[in-house]
Amino acid sequence: MERGSGGKRAQRPQVLKGFRDHLPEQMIRRLRVIAICRTIFERHGFEPIDTPALEYLEVLTGKAGENEKLMYRFVDNGGRNVGLRYDLTVPLARFTAANENALVLPFKRYHIAPVWRAENPQRGRYREFWQCDADIVGAATPAADAEIVAILAEALTAIGLPNFEVLVSHRQLLEGIARAAGVPSEAAGSIFRSVDKLPKIGPAGVRSELIDAGIDRDAADRVLAAVTVDGDAATILRDLRVRLDGQPESLKAIADLESLFELLPALGVPAERVRLDVSIARGLDYYTGAVYEATVTEPKIGSVAGGGRYDGLVGSMLGRPVPATGGSLGLERILEVVEQFGLLPARTSVADVFVAAFANGQAAAAEVARSLRLAGINVDLSLQATRNLGDQMKYAARKGIPFVVIPGEEELARGMVTLRDLASGEQTQVQIANLPAALGATTRQ
Amino acid sequence: MERGSGGKRAQRPQVLKGFRDHLPEQMIRRLRVIAICRTIFERHGFEPIDTPALEYLEVLTGKAGENEKLMYRFVDNGGRNVGLRYDLTVPLARFTAANENALVLPFKRYHIAPVWRAENPQRGRYREFWQCDADIVGAATPAADAEIVAILAEALTAIGLPNFEVLVSHRQLLEGIARAAGVPSEAAGSIFRSVDKLPKIGPAGVRSELIDAGIDRDAADRVLAAVTVDGDAATILRDLRVRLDGQPESLKAIADLESLFELLPALGVPAERVRLDVSIARGLDYYTGAVYEATVTEPKIGSVAGGGRYDGLVGSMLGRPVPATGGSLGLERILEVVEQFGLLPARTSVADVFVAAFANGQAAAAEVARSLRLAGINVDLSLQATRNLGDQMKYAARKGIPFVVIPGEEELARGMVTLRDLASGEQTQVQIANLPAALGATTRQ
Repeated sequence: MERGSGGKRAQRPQVLKGFRDHLPEQMIRRLRVIAICRTIFERHGFEPIDTPALEYLEVLTGKAGENEKLMYRFVDNGGRNVGLRYDLTVPLARFTAANENALVLPFKRYHIAPVWRAENPQRGRYREFWQCDADIVGAATPAADAEIVAILAEALTAIGLPNFEVLVSHRQLLEGIARAAGVPSEAAGSIFRSVDKLPKIGPAGVRSELIDAGIDRDAADRVLAAVTVDGDAATILRDLRVRLDGQPESLKAIADLESLFELLPALGVPAERVRLDVSIARGLDYYTGAVYEATVTEPKIGSVAGGGRYDGLVGSMLGRPVPATGGSLGLERILEVVEQFGLLPARTSVADVFVAAFANGQAAAAEVARSLRLAGINVDLSLQATRNLGDQMKYAARKGIPFVVIPGEEELARGMVTLRDLASGEQTQVQIANLPAALGATTRQ
Repeated sequence: MERGSGGKRAQRPQVLKGFRDHLPEQMIRRLRVIAICRTIFERHGFEPIDTPALEYLEVLTGKAGENEKLMYRFVDNGGRNVGLRYDLTVPLARFTAANENALVLPFKRYHIAPVWRAENPQRGRYREFWQCDADIVGAATPAADAEIVAILAEALTAIGLPNFEVLVSHRQLLEGIARAAGVPSEAAGSIFRSVDKLPKIGPAGVRSELIDAGIDRDAADRVLAAVTVDGDAATILRDLRVRLDGQPESLKAIADLESLFELLPALGVPAERVRLDVSIARGLDYYTGAVYEATVTEPKIGSVAGGGRYDGLVGSMLGRPVPATGGSLGLERILEVVEQFGLLPARTSVADVFVAAFANGQAAAAEVARSLRLAGINVDLSLQATRNLGDQMKYAARKGIPFVVIPGEEELARGMVTLRDLASGEQTQVQIANLPAALGATTRQ
């Protein structure tokens, strides 16, 4: 950077802090994860949509809560207050309201797109990142929540995450537990915040945080006893049914979670991939019912997916109550895990083969490339016939292309070319017509 | 909109002017066109990359020329001047400079992403639109330009555009023609602008515009004679070789175009899909060599793709000369043509089948859905078992899902379900194990 120097100034080539370029090898991997998410979403009958990156600020700030200060916002040339979307859920609510007449409810949609937040960057957290969301608008049943949980588990399984677990809870449970323990409702917020840290700071840590927050010891103990019940979902829910007796909203939550957990095996979710965890709270204000959060034990990057039921948000824009539930897969964090464990071994190049070219042989090389492309093979054709063959092969090797076709003039006259395997160094003469078959082993997964 | 009314105010659900929601049916079509572009780009060995939507304003304004005033720009929370990218070419130059050491030249990349321009919206022109770009950085040969022209033609052919033509010219040709005709170099700009309108206003119109611009009659006639030579590329170039004799840069341009047109048949581009048209100029300042523009005769929406050689732009950020050439397919305008002609008949739903559910039969329905999903079939599972069957079937019909599976309790006991073809109304009883085969006809293209 020659800023301020007297000489000719080069433009600064950096990206903004918290933003990233995606190089081919990374992008090939990103596109594979996105393709897997798409396949799973469509397998469940979810339809693709897209919405603008920019929205009226008023749309975005309505339910943003703590995200509001993290928003990229400005005044556009027409004097409008606008902002870059910071998630895909608020835009879905706006989309549903704007396109109400064109949609059939329940509306199951997926949306894979970047969002922007002016947060402090750290591992797995960027200012521009992609979300892969699946939501159901217009179904209040536990079956809808179960479908979302199944999709999250299925997608993470298909990507190959070795150690994930989808934790499930319900907003009404913690609220009910606080109420049953005698915690005044204005102190419930500190219950949510402290209990959420249970995996990190342990029961003793949560207990002392609660007491520090002014909760009395007996109440704190009752809360802790309720959120640390051991066992499978049915056992915990049976226990809670006793503890929360007489609280209709909590009992409804328990019944809904019972239905949800009963449906998961039918949807093919293995028991070891999903767990009722009463302690999870999920940050966002708009959740009203079941909440889900997928975590990995390694690497330590927090949740890789999450979501929940938000029966108020869509209705707030539509002017009538509309139940909704959905989940979001965090592409960046999933990719951290993929890279950490070397999952989805990606190629460094999309090209299956490089076709070299000799001086005065560019057209002949192009014809060989064309015949391979017609057979569905990805061909990187040399565009520098005047470079010597060694340099052209070095290019292919540096790019990680597995094979090189050398269309020498004499061989071409006999309808043949040389095929070189760059890994083994082995060279064979092959009839051009047989090249696609000879390259068959390299066709992309 | 109840703005200012005393009552509870609903948030306004609109999108910003010039921005659009993409509903499922449109999005399914968009994704198909994008998939076709990706396939063609990768078939030619071009690698995917992505860059941030936001860049330092300084990066974007360097070579933007007339686009500068159309940029979405603001000051971010950290006091940085930033802008939303308005094309994918300037970000490529910045990307190449920032990642120089990680890239092997020639670097062939594709980039499919939205860009933003604060232009006045009109048919096929929006403030947020997608470009599908393929560029080659680091190859100065006409073979590189030929590869780009071939990719544009191949992609438009694969999408099925019935009436497109890729027009090719070279920046040095019009400049040489102006010089040879005796037009002073400061008047060359008006030559470009007027000659560019040749298809619209005809030779007489161009002539009078030139004369109005102060070009003398003889010079105007000489320009017109040169740009209206009839024939194939070889004929026109042979003619120009005489007219532009003694102008080394123009003769080099002619030789490059000759090579380019000689290579196109080897690359599989049909002669009727590409034409030398000396009159095309292309607006952007950064073009330095061959330029390309794909147009359709119907509908009247201008060019659907374009590009050219820009040997200065990348180097201006890298600090050393780097040749580059590339083309951009305009997704929005291509989709206008696709819709106009009913190309790529898209499904209205990704779902192949809807699985209905009866009260107390949600888990059984989920199991049927699961077995179909495992067979690769996209299943929309009913989440509203308490709705009557007629309403559930109406939902499937309104969404355009072709088949409904009805898992009645008695049939299930015999391992069977009813399969209903919504188009014909025909119903058959099918063994669950045979359902995937029975639905085989519906699997997605």
